[in-house]
Amino acid sequence: MNSSVRLPEETSWIIEESFFNPEWLGKYESIMCLGNGYMGQRGTTEENYLNEVRNTFVAGTFNKFDEQEVTELPNLPDLIQMKIKVDQDWLDLTQGKISDYTRRLNLKTGELSRSFNWRTPGGKVVSFQFSRFISMDQRHLMGQKVIIKALGNPIDLELVSGIDGQQTNSGSQHFSEGEKHLFEGRFMQMTSETTQSAIDVVQTTVHHFSVASDQLKSRIEMRRRQIYNKYWLSLEEGQELTIEKVSTIHTSRDLEHEGQGLKAIEAKGLSELKEAEEKGFDRLLAESAEAWNRKVWRIAPITITSSNHQDQVALNFAKYHLHVMTPAHDNRMNIGAKGLSGEGYKGHTFWDTEIFMLPYFTYTHPEIARGLLEFRYHGLQGAHRKAEENGYEGAQFPWESAWIEDGETTPVWGAADIVTGKATKIWSGFIEQHITSDVAYGVNQYVEAVGDQEFLETKGYEIILDTAKFWASRLEWDEATETYHINEVIGPDEYKEHVDNNAFTNYTAKWNIQKAIGIYEELKKSKPVLFDFLSQKLALERVYPEWLAKVDKLVIPEPNQDLVIPQDDTYLSKKIIPLESYKQDEQVGTLFHKYNLEQVNNMQITKQADVLLLIYLFEHLFSEEVKLANWHYYEPKTMHDSSLSLSTHSALAADLGEIELSYDLFKEATNIDMGPAMTSSDEGIHAASLGGIWLMTVFGFGGVRALDGQLRINPHLPKAWQELRYSIFWHQNELEMLVTTDELIVTNKNQISPVTFTTRGCEYTVLDSVIISLS
Amino acid sequence: MNSSVRLPEETSWIIEESFFNPEWLGKYESIMCLGNGYMGQRGTTEENYLNEVRNTFVAGTFNKFDEQEVTELPNLPDLIQMKIKVDQDWLDLTQGKISDYTRRLNLKTGELSRSFNWRTPGGKVVSFQFSRFISMDQRHLMGQKVIIKALGNPIDLELVSGIDGQQTNSGSQHFSEGEKHLFEGRFMQMTSETTQSAIDVVQTTVHHFSVASDQLKSRIEMRRRQIYNKYWLSLEEGQELTIEKVSTIHTSRDLEHEGQGLKAIEAKGLSELKEAEEKGFDRLLAESAEAWNRKVWRIAPITITSSNHQDQVALNFAKYHLHVMTPAHDNRMNIGAKGLSGEGYKGHTFWDTEIFMLPYFTYTHPEIARGLLEFRYHGLQGAHRKAEENGYEGAQFPWESAWIEDGETTPVWGAADIVTGKATKIWSGFIEQHITSDVAYGVNQYVEAVGDQEFLETKGYEIILDTAKFWASRLEWDEATETYHINEVIGPDEYKEHVDNNAFTNYTAKWNIQKAIGIYEELKKSKPVLFDFLSQKLALERVYPEWLAKVDKLVIPEPNQDLVIPQDDTYLSKKIIPLESYKQDEQVGTLFHKYNLEQVNNMQITKQADVLLLIYLFEHLFSEEVKLANWHYYEPKTMHDSSLSLSTHSALAADLGEIELSYDLFKEATNIDMGPAMTSSDEGIHAASLGGIWLMTVFGFGGVRALDGQLRINPHLPKAWQELRYSIFWHQNELEMLVTTDELIVTNKNQISPVTFTTRGCEYTVLDSVIISLS
Repeated sequence: MNSSVRLPEETSWIIEESFFNPEWLGKYESIMCLGNGYMGQRGTTEENYLNEVRNTFVAGTFNKFDEQEVTELPNLPDLIQMKIKVDQDWLDLTQGKISDYTRRLNLKTGELSRSFNWRTPGGKVVSFQFSRFISMDQRHLMGQKVIIKALGNPIDLELVSGIDGQQTNSGSQHFSEGEKHLFEGRFMQMTSETTQSAIDVVQTTVHHFSVASDQLKSRIEMRRRQIYNKYWLSLEEGQELTIEKVSTIHTSRDLEHEGQGLKAIEAKGLSELKEAEEKGFDRLLAESAEAWNRKVWRIAPITITSSNHQDQVALNFAKYHLHVMTPAHDNRMNIGAKGLSGEGYKGHTFWDTEIFMLPYFTYTHPEIARGLLEFRYHGLQGAHRKAEENGYEGAQFPWESAWIEDGETTPVWGAADIVTGKATKIWSGFIEQHITSDVAYGVNQYVEAVGDQEFLETKGYEIILDTAKFWASRLEWDEATETYHINEVIGPDEYKEHVDNNAFTNYTAKWNIQKAIGIYEELKKSKPVLFDFLSQKLALERVYPEWLAKVDKLVIPEPNQDLVIPQDDTYLSKKIIPLESYKQDEQVGTLFHKYNLEQVNNMQITKQADVLLLIYLFEHLFSEEVKLANWHYYEPKTMHDSSLSLSTHSALAADLGEIELSYDLFKEATNIDMGPAMTSSDEGIHAASLGGIWLMTVFGFGGVRALDGQLRINPHLPKAWQELRYSIFWHQNELEMLVTTDELIVTNKNQISPVTFTTRGCEYTVLDSVIISLS
Repeated sequence: MNSSVRLPEETSWIIEESFFNPEWLGKYESIMCLGNGYMGQRGTTEENYLNEVRNTFVAGTFNKFDEQEVTELPNLPDLIQMKIKVDQDWLDLTQGKISDYTRRLNLKTGELSRSFNWRTPGGKVVSFQFSRFISMDQRHLMGQKVIIKALGNPIDLELVSGIDGQQTNSGSQHFSEGEKHLFEGRFMQMTSETTQSAIDVVQTTVHHFSVASDQLKSRIEMRRRQIYNKYWLSLEEGQELTIEKVSTIHTSRDLEHEGQGLKAIEAKGLSELKEAEEKGFDRLLAESAEAWNRKVWRIAPITITSSNHQDQVALNFAKYHLHVMTPAHDNRMNIGAKGLSGEGYKGHTFWDTEIFMLPYFTYTHPEIARGLLEFRYHGLQGAHRKAEENGYEGAQFPWESAWIEDGETTPVWGAADIVTGKATKIWSGFIEQHITSDVAYGVNQYVEAVGDQEFLETKGYEIILDTAKFWASRLEWDEATETYHINEVIGPDEYKEHVDNNAFTNYTAKWNIQKAIGIYEELKKSKPVLFDFLSQKLALERVYPEWLAKVDKLVIPEPNQDLVIPQDDTYLSKKIIPLESYKQDEQVGTLFHKYNLEQVNNMQITKQADVLLLIYLFEHLFSEEVKLANWHYYEPKTMHDSSLSLSTHSALAADLGEIELSYDLFKEATNIDMGPAMTSSDEGIHAASLGGIWLMTVFGFGGVRALDGQLRINPHLPKAWQELRYSIFWHQNELEMLVTTDELIVTNKNQISPVTFTTRGCEYTVLDSVIISLS
């Protein structure tokens, strides 16, 4: 059986595993990841299994193992592990017999629970209930509860639980062995320091047992990188035991601990834990669930009335993970490509943020969106360094970003080429340059939707101007055609390395420079003080004429006679091969079992939306005919071998009026993590794909888009949906859209100002509510 | 059932596990460790289990994880792992049903084999036979063979096998991620470098399948710190598949690779592997077995005719492991306290070598003994540094030694004190100073037994003189008594820290200075050139008068009115508590579940032989009455909480004529690794205890001792033994002793020179053979 993410009919808030399969640990660890943006933790079981990946990450605590590796988010000592022995048998669900098994993640409350009856190999029957959460209310806090009941027989129990620092990132150890402390005979603390970035991590934990202390024997043990307690007790037949384990994590990277010594952080870890322990697990969980509601679910809710129950779950799932993964508390941090749910992509931030996750925050949690963009502002220093190292000026953003000062963190060398036996160079860090205009795009989108003038003036203008400076310096003069080219790049389609004039790259670069020209002119006219400041800082008077001179001479791949926009200078001349069999494979990348990258480079095979992404982001630049022609040309050649691809295609299909196709793609895209592929999420959830679920819903079916500052709402419901209700913020107005087959009702719920938008070409202005017929 | 190291009656060469218990992995990994002194590898199974410790070490490749840790022997990328899937079930003996299970280490051939039939959870029945070895013939080589047979049903097989560099030392990673290469589509190679000592480790491996290549599908995979092949094939009912995996390990630390670049080492790893693969597993194993015979078993064999079959096995087991663990190929290396069989004690060398393992080599493989002592000579530089840092002169040997240049490598901080929550200081590196005279003792013993004048003149004299210089500078003048003291030390009994005038320390220090005085006087008289050289190097003319002035004023704890030698100045005044219950515990150190070290420090509790060790090593200094009085006083207070203790007591009991008690202790001591305690060997075998097995046999029951250069052979057989036949080398003469209840027959097998020895107070000289009546 190859499908098991069961979605109970009765609720759209539950992700459930209905039977245990040790082969699928990775899947559930990822999709049942807990977190609060400060920290994230895979949904590993308390007891150990082979092939488990026991990750806990704190956002922003990057460390570099050695000079040959790039910095990555280190895997913290584990707090969750509990070894439980019933008489002579260690709890292990591959042994004995399990009944009434269920594991559930409650997306609404953030509670991960698990319960089952276990008949031990020795013949005892014991019921187990596990519950845990990472607090959305207090970001340093996590809680666990275990209820063990002896059914029909007395049992002896042994429990081993504490802090285990033997974790690594697939073998790379980022911490020096921590100092271990036991306070008051109960509170265990371990203080570990990252080996290169010298970040202190303080983990403190305590256990509370429901039995009288004289029924419980315990002993502390300290081993290499470990501190734990062993507990022994007996349960009578029918007796129930509750164990609560509450833990805190604090680090010297936390803003609140800036300038504090380690002692103060250790003291805080302990005092916060003591307060939490007083409250007890149930109250702490309730407070966290309330915070989930307050911070997430109450804001811009989405309800889908669909014949397919999974659609609503997918939305809840996506929003849940978007908040688990996003370090909203600290603008020196951003979102990793796997969130905080796995070691994949090393916790690094890509263009995924601006193009796939940022829109959700921009339109629903603008203060979080702003923080994510401030991260890029903090990153300008690294972007300048990168530009300079490459012989350019301005801000060239890193393909992969980690800590704000790190600059480029893309690994340079990948696995060895199978044929030559030599390491393959990873070119993205050098030549996948569209990230720079993607950042500018994100800034512009945020500012257009939010109208955050303060951000624009203190940071936004500067980012757009500085990135335009990079592009202008990057252009290469082509004597023959008397035009500027952008050669030797990788576009969004990473199966084409070293191409010239990738359409996406050239269009967005041009847009970036044009934006900067507009800003220059507007500021000079209307904000002279700010203009002078920026002009001096960025040498605008020198670069502005250059922008003017170059921008119109930048080659922009135009539609050919078949209206197809060439993806790059050579794409259309490459060989075409049939791809259907590979596209149907459950696993991505199977093409490479037959061809190597060099061979794929020479065929019309596209990894993910490239020209189509351009069309989706800049729809007003292209006619319907061009859009359709490119859709029909490129989609069949696109492998969707990136989780960024399907959602783009779904939203674009909706734009093109291909609603049922859009919905098919929607379903496929929502399956990337939640679906039946049981190993593809092993290294972590697909963050961009989760942002994509919101995009497909609100931008695709909801039809929302901001085009040159103008709000457009062109909804189209797929047949399966009877109703879609969603909200966005537009210049602080909370707009709620109720879409049915027949009408669109737009309600301005907080009525800050009148909001003008277009629907199907007509303009509406709403202060309170407007009903628009769609029939 | 808590006992399972089955010893088949039919052979004394087999260590067997007759049923699989995943709780006991550690035990069998340690006692079934393979190796050849160059490398050692725990007897981990091919398939993975929780709690396995998958160690491979190459002697001498020490690395320091960070500044807070001490250098240790790093755990290499694993070559042994094979994941095997039958239809949908991964091989895992905790699943399905096993029959006809056996795992055997053949001590004679060094082959570790395992066979069983496995009924998969899916209902297929498959027979497995695993075999492997580390070559005693070619030290860089290891081989594996797997025979898989489909019984009564066809099966699909998947095999995943290669090189896995995600191993750590309990969480500490000592290697930068290795470069991975695939040569000729078959030979996998990974080159890893230690992070601090910059040692390159080159591992190369290849697989050979017995099926035609068109029946086999395979694919190479490279992941983080991993390179492996996946293979797929099908077996018909009754079909048998043989897989051979041959691997080589080379390092830049190898003497043969000195001055070579990495490329040359990589090329050597590959070419040696190719040659080996041509020979095939069976021939390689036969060559290795022949080398075991040639290098180990043929030399100074021991046969015991005993009513207890285990006694002979214990001897074979001890000798096997002594050769597995001892880097006989390179005198820059020595033996770790856990050999090459586990992470315990970090591969460091202690006094265990000189007092417990060296005698075996001195008397049976003098060239290996010499190498071990040359290691100390190479370590003089570190010993000088240590003395100087402590304000002394001469050579103060490190308590723990790793690489020859490292000097002291004892960790400074241990686990936190449970009561105070602060880290405990490990004092051994500072004040457990008897190691320095232990080294001098080992040199002297070697020279007396071997008569290796060349070693003595080039290295031995210097070590004894240099260590005497340390001791002389170390003595503290006590004004009140007008004597010299050695204060603030730890003796062999490590439960007593910071004691004054530990008997063992003071006696051996005095002996060391006396030896040096004798050497000075003899060399000055008879070897003026050598004398001048050493005198200049060591400033002998300055220190000799000092030695003379101090040596007789050094306080030597004398027997009191009860003939008891005070272990130190305060021991006899401390509290006495009943210890029987703790002594009977299977686990050592259980005392500390009740008392902390400070409390134990204040009681008459001895961890291991201390005064009794002194009496055992220097028997001619004490009368029989004194020996017996001390035996009766100290033995009951001795916890034997060190594996060094029982063998000393056994040998001493034999000296004292307490033969049956000696035999009881012998049996207890041989059980340290082979016995029913299923977790105490988890961190590795007890090297000193294995040396002790030989000591108890040859020094204890065999009665061999060299006393001031005079050979003594005073055998006593326990009742269970009908005959003991053993050999030693004495000044190049191979003496074979045949001991029965009635007589001792001494045969000089190679008759290099007449050998004089005493038995029961009478002197004999033998050129060919002599029969001595014992009745």
